[in-house]
Amino acid sequence: MTVFPKVAIVGTGAVGASVGGGLRARGLAREVWGFDPANGEAARSAGAIDRVAASLAEALDGADLVLLAAPVPVNRALLGDAALREALGPRTVLTDVSSTKASVVAAARSGLGARLGRFVASHPIAGSDRAGPAAARADLIAGAHVIVCPTEDCDADALATVESTWAALGGRVARMDAAHHDRLFAEVSHWPHAVAFALSASVGCGPLADDARRYHGAGLRDTTRVGGSPPELWAGILLDNREASLAAAAAFRVELERIEHALAEGDRDALIEALARGATWRTTL
Amino acid sequence: MTVFPKVAIVGTGAVGASVGGGLRARGLAREVWGFDPANGEAARSAGAIDRVAASLAEALDGADLVLLAAPVPVNRALLGDAALREALGPRTVLTDVSSTKASVVAAARSGLGARLGRFVASHPIAGSDRAGPAAARADLIAGAHVIVCPTEDCDADALATVESTWAALGGRVARMDAAHHDRLFAEVSHWPHAVAFALSASVGCGPLADDARRYHGAGLRDTTRVGGSPPELWAGILLDNREASLAAAAAFRVELERIEHALAEGDRDALIEALARGATWRTTL
Repeated sequence: MTVFPKVAIVGTGAVGASVGGGLRARGLAREVWGFDPANGEAARSAGAIDRVAASLAEALDGADLVLLAAPVPVNRALLGDAALREALGPRTVLTDVSSTKASVVAAARSGLGARLGRFVASHPIAGSDRAGPAAARADLIAGAHVIVCPTEDCDADALATVESTWAALGGRVARMDAAHHDRLFAEVSHWPHAVAFALSASVGCGPLADDARRYHGAGLRDTTRVGGSPPELWAGILLDNREASLAAAAAFRVELERIEHALAEGDRDALIEALARGATWRTTL
Repeated sequence: MTVFPKVAIVGTGAVGASVGGGLRARGLAREVWGFDPANGEAARSAGAIDRVAASLAEALDGADLVLLAAPVPVNRALLGDAALREALGPRTVLTDVSSTKASVVAAARSGLGARLGRFVASHPIAGSDRAGPAAARADLIAGAHVIVCPTEDCDADALATVESTWAALGGRVARMDAAHHDRLFAEVSHWPHAVAFALSASVGCGPLADDARRYHGAGLRDTTRVGGSPPELWAGILLDNREASLAAAAAFRVELERIEHALAEGDRDALIEALARGATWRTTL
């Protein structure tokens, strides 16, 4: 694929810095600029970007591809803001890495005006519970699914550019409607994070927290792992995908109550049946 | 430490076969016998035991150390049964690997009679979501905590034998009261398993199960991992530790509802606070 003369990454935390590092490692960009008042310098020191921009306008000036990789509410605010629209060149392609898509697409629709066709919403299914450029890995995208949610207004060349860039980073690209994406990720990511946070809180704020820290096994470690993720980041994601997350919460509560009820009743057959409902599916993951 | 002339393992599934393999690999037993109508031959073929006993009595005959490694309800039934008591030699040391301890100790108290002093309840914090001798690892105990719950009736030499055997397998031995053990493991293991089963069911029985299988990330994989464990096994454990598990369930529900409520209200500050309650503790695991 063509080498981008200039790529701009807005938000050089774990994912932004990983993509920057990946573009550099694979020679996909002549220059990667980053804009991030908090993480810019650290990302540059880590080799994830070539240059730190002093402003959004400087980052975007002449960029061929712009990646919004700030937290969801920031990406959304940027898309709705005239400053971004005015700094975009007429052919600049714009994408993002937000974990929610419908609200991001809506913000683009309301804010990008004549530039709407250049925006292709993306969600790489990659990352970890660790934040910041220190958690970045240049091969983060390799082997990962990347969901792309084009609107009917997308320019064909912009869509092709975004999809081929993810593919060049090793991503496995799939297209999906934004609303479907959000329902799916409420189920497979957003609400499971809430569950892990709740489980971490119930053990970690309980009277046995110290013993639990010492004597837990791999079960608790895995079940709660994403419960150590940054709370502000996940509050933003959950609020941004509120309706679908509440629907996933309700479905989860039904299953949890099924188990709790069978246990309270001491009904062994019902308990086995309740536990078995998802076990087979889980073993196919 | 002394080499046991004969060790008997009752139940040669994942944990029993692992301990058998560990004893053999470290030269801690001259002969390891196994009794398990379902898994005995597979455990022998895998090298986890030397000989398969045709009956419980044959396994126990002349054994220096007996390990009960069947599912909890089976271990409990064996301890309460005259057949086990009568097959035990006067100096035979008896231990188990059950995930719950109070009911096991109670069964020993009611069933072992004059042999009660020879029993030392144990719980190695090791294992996985996979069952059967194929999932066994001779180094399973190495580095793992092993909780030992001696009663006031334990013979000092029996306690020393059990503790030094776990230590010789690489275990990190800690003593705990059985009731405290059960409260702790309801929180760090038994209820977290229920949560993982419920989450697996809510996604795996939902309308998006196929997309979820394809597009989930590491978050769902880890959060639900133990939700692929054997339902019958975990129904037994949960029912055996019912009261403490229900208490852990109630504490979890409070935290879950705190998150769900803040999300439903769209209250960002309350949501961040709710998510943050356990996040710091989790990052210290």
